Amino acid sequence: MINIPRPTAVLEAAARLQGIANHTPLHTSRTLNAQTGQQIFLKCENFQRVGAFKFRGAYNAVSQLSPAQQAAGVVTHSSGNHAQGLALAAQLLGIQATIVMPEDSPAIKKAATAGYGATIVTCPAIERETVCAELIARHGYTLIHPYDNPHIIAGAGTAALELLQDAGPLDLLLAPIGGGGLLSGTALAAAAIQPHCRVIGVEPAVANDAQQSWQTGEILRLTAVPPTLADGLRTRYVGEHNLPILRQYVDDILTVTEEDIVAALKFIWLRLKLVVEPSSAVALAPLLMGKIAGQAQRVGVILSGGNVDVAGIGAIFAD
Amino acid sequence: MINIPRPTAVLEAAARLQGIANHTPLHTSRTLNAQTGQQIFLKCENFQRVGAFKFRGAYNAVSQLSPAQQAAGVVTHSSGNHAQGLALAAQLLGIQATIVMPEDSPAIKKAATAGYGATIVTCPAIERETVCAELIARHGYTLIHPYDNPHIIAGAGTAALELLQDAGPLDLLLAPIGGGGLLSGTALAAAAIQPHCRVIGVEPAVANDAQQSWQTGEILRLTAVPPTLADGLRTRYVGEHNLPILRQYVDDILTVTEEDIVAALKFIWLRLKLVVEPSSAVALAPLLMGKIAGQAQRVGVILSGGNVDVAGIGAIFAD
Repeated sequence: MINIPRPTAVLEAAARLQGIANHTPLHTSRTLNAQTGQQIFLKCENFQRVGAFKFRGAYNAVSQLSPAQQAAGVVTHSSGNHAQGLALAAQLLGIQATIVMPEDSPAIKKAATAGYGATIVTCPAIERETVCAELIARHGYTLIHPYDNPHIIAGAGTAALELLQDAGPLDLLLAPIGGGGLLSGTALAAAAIQPHCRVIGVEPAVANDAQQSWQTGEILRLTAVPPTLADGLRTRYVGEHNLPILRQYVDDILTVTEEDIVAALKFIWLRLKLVVEPSSAVALAPLLMGKIAGQAQRVGVILSGGNVDVAGIGAIFAD
Repeated sequence: MINIPRPTAVLEAAARLQGIANHTPLHTSRTLNAQTGQQIFLKCENFQRVGAFKFRGAYNAVSQLSPAQQAAGVVTHSSGNHAQGLALAAQLLGIQATIVMPEDSPAIKKAATAGYGATIVTCPAIERETVCAELIARHGYTLIHPYDNPHIIAGAGTAALELLQDAGPLDLLLAPIGGGGLLSGTALAAAAIQPHCRVIGVEPAVANDAQQSWQTGEILRLTAVPPTLADGLRTRYVGEHNLPILRQYVDDILTVTEEDIVAALKFIWLRLKLVVEPSSAVALAPLLMGKIAGQAQRVGVILSGGNVDVAGIGAIFAD
């Protein structure tokens, strides 16, 4: 049975994260407002612990496990921000975390995750879920899914909650969507305290499974990892906990091209002076491209994280 | 005759810049505090208009010109942040600015400066001061020197003033030093409102003319442009207005190696998620390298700007 969190779950998550997650700042820019004709508030989750919003959901989930579950430990499969978020959350709570990573994951990501005290298990990418299931069967670990989990969703929503509380009344909230954890949490946060604020998700056009799933009500599963620069949004399908929330609370899902993502990423680095990962640029791109109807609106945008291979991405700045 | 600004000149400059310069945020980091054993407040002048503190001094200087001087226009020689700061300040005040740049300046810098409405005059680098003098003789322009000017100094000091006001009592303030505009203004700000706060300048070891000038009281003029990664600090000598202030109000000038600068720059980008230029890393480097005596101090650091060629600097992140 699917347990869908209510909007108030975000408020409860915020109480759990108080003093533990960073209350990240809002960033504003004269240039950005002039260029878009809107009044934009950027929620800087690149300044969150582990460099991404993922810590919020991980801590909210792990802190609610029973003593027996906490004693047994947690496991997930991820090579990205969720791995580091879960590792740090478990470390802070004195719980053993095991992270299953593809054997070809960058050494720097393995080291960062191990640096938070997690045990890294590597395997061929295609076997990740199987290896995870074996570890659960053998050791009694609890799986903390990267997005298809009500506590992950509610925790992720606390970023938007802070944004809405700090900025005051907003007309529109934009968040990127991959598996749907951040966007469903964002929509719950708005429903909880600013139900008139519209919520729009943004997805790379080459990975528009969420848009289609949201339109039809059926989860579309891509057969291959979508080839988008936004590595945090390369999920192949939204979660079963996420889709009902998206259908009920999200007003629209837009797509952006890879060229739009590059242009937005360059703008954020070069003009706003923020180190963000490509997934963060996805949510700002529709504003910069003039794809948001209406002018002089108060718009919140969640910059989801800042973990990026600077040397690798430098080439896009060459022209 | 040299007109040395008093500490209160920084307060007067702040009133002039109210609502015109950005009141930039402070940034703090658990990781940074844990690693250094200090409580550090980073003043994010990379978020200032034109991407660097230089706008503050330029506006403070240009806004105090007489109507006749304003009608005639202003000129400077710079290929860096001062050029853009002066261009924007002049544009906001409806004044014509002419910027003399070396003919081999990057096209992107010429375009950025011209984008603020300034006239760009190019010449061989060695002839910059001569060309500037000719323009002044012919057109009656007022020279706005990048650092050797009391209004530039007082304006630059407003960054530290905000830092001291926003952070509360500090034990120590760190700022980079090139020509001395930022550091002398910073020292005046501390003298004005927190005279017990120590002020230390930081300079690349390969460009330590300021350290030597501060020690001897005589301006040392380097014969060649110093080969430091910190392009904002490649000045060959401090100004005549700057040295007396440095001698009276600055407690020490430290040097850092090029390796220290690279390490600090990587830390700021990768851990703090801030796009800063190498000059900004110079002031943080002594803290990261454990070169500041004492623990658990409240320390302010001025991150001077964020204008950097991302593609060009990406290579330092490759290892």
